[in-house]
Amino acid sequence: MEFTIKPIGFVRNARKEIDDDHWGTVVSEIELSKDMREASLQGIIDFSHLEIIFYFNRVSDNKIQQGARHPRNNKSFPEVGIFAQRGKNRPNKLGLTTVELLDHQGRTLIVKGLDAIDGTPIMDIKPVMKEFLPKGEVKQPDWSLSIMEKYWD
Amino acid sequence: MEFTIKPIGFVRNARKEIDDDHWGTVVSEIELSKDMREASLQGIIDFSHLEIIFYFNRVSDNKIQQGARHPRNNKSFPEVGIFAQRGKNRPNKLGLTTVELLDHQGRTLIVKGLDAIDGTPIMDIKPVMKEFLPKGEVKQPDWSLSIMEKYWD
Repeated sequence: MEFTIKPIGFVRNARKEIDDDHWGTVVSEIELSKDMREASLQGIIDFSHLEIIFYFNRVSDNKIQQGARHPRNNKSFPEVGIFAQRGKNRPNKLGLTTVELLDHQGRTLIVKGLDAIDGTPIMDIKPVMKEFLPKGEVKQPDWSLSIMEKYWD
Repeated sequence: MEFTIKPIGFVRNARKEIDDDHWGTVVSEIELSKDMREASLQGIIDFSHLEIIFYFNRVSDNKIQQGARHPRNNKSFPEVGIFAQRGKNRPNKLGLTTVELLDHQGRTLIVKGLDAIDGTPIMDIKPVMKEFLPKGEVKQPDWSLSIMEKYWD
């Protein structure tokens, strides 16, 4: 069973190379692909935040992790499964980040905090609704707190 | 430009038919596909919540919305673009929901609040980290509040 997905847009920003940290202030444009209609973004500016599903197109198939590994290959972190971390070398190569929507102009969105480099294909855009945020207290292990320390700096 | 994605798991639950509402108490199993390794879930129980990317495999290609429509085809709501709503008839047919992780047993996760019917293919599982939640106040239009009123009941 396989499915085909096509970019609905692309990222444009100043980040040309992959980097583990310092994504918080990055402002990106998301421009719709040619075969998408401008009306697909109608009313989006009434939302403050969006969830962006993108595709890690720079990950080679032979780098995809199928089991467990040390996050960021740092042996001071425990070995955890690829689905217990958010690293890019994952089956299906899908990335997911919540961004702040700054502006909408025609076929282009201006967003803040998208941790994807220039040229990254976008697979979906969904508005954030409070009712879809986690219910109850969010718990996470200590290694994930360490990893995130400088991520949004 | 096209990419191929394959299910990394499947949903098992008591919801056999698509329904707009009443998803909050649904408990689902997510079982890994045969070609996925059990180690891919190692350590996942240290997280309380997961983001599940799934595939709306029951949506026909000819039902996919490319522009704007009234959410739930309800004309009392404004027409908004498909990327300004979370409906299933969307390009690439990707769904996304944050669930509560109740248990992990071998190749199976038990989760609460997954709004996907029995048999739905799962494309990715990501742990929720507080640092990836929306920064600042979440704003959303009134129609989205109406739509969500009974969604999790």
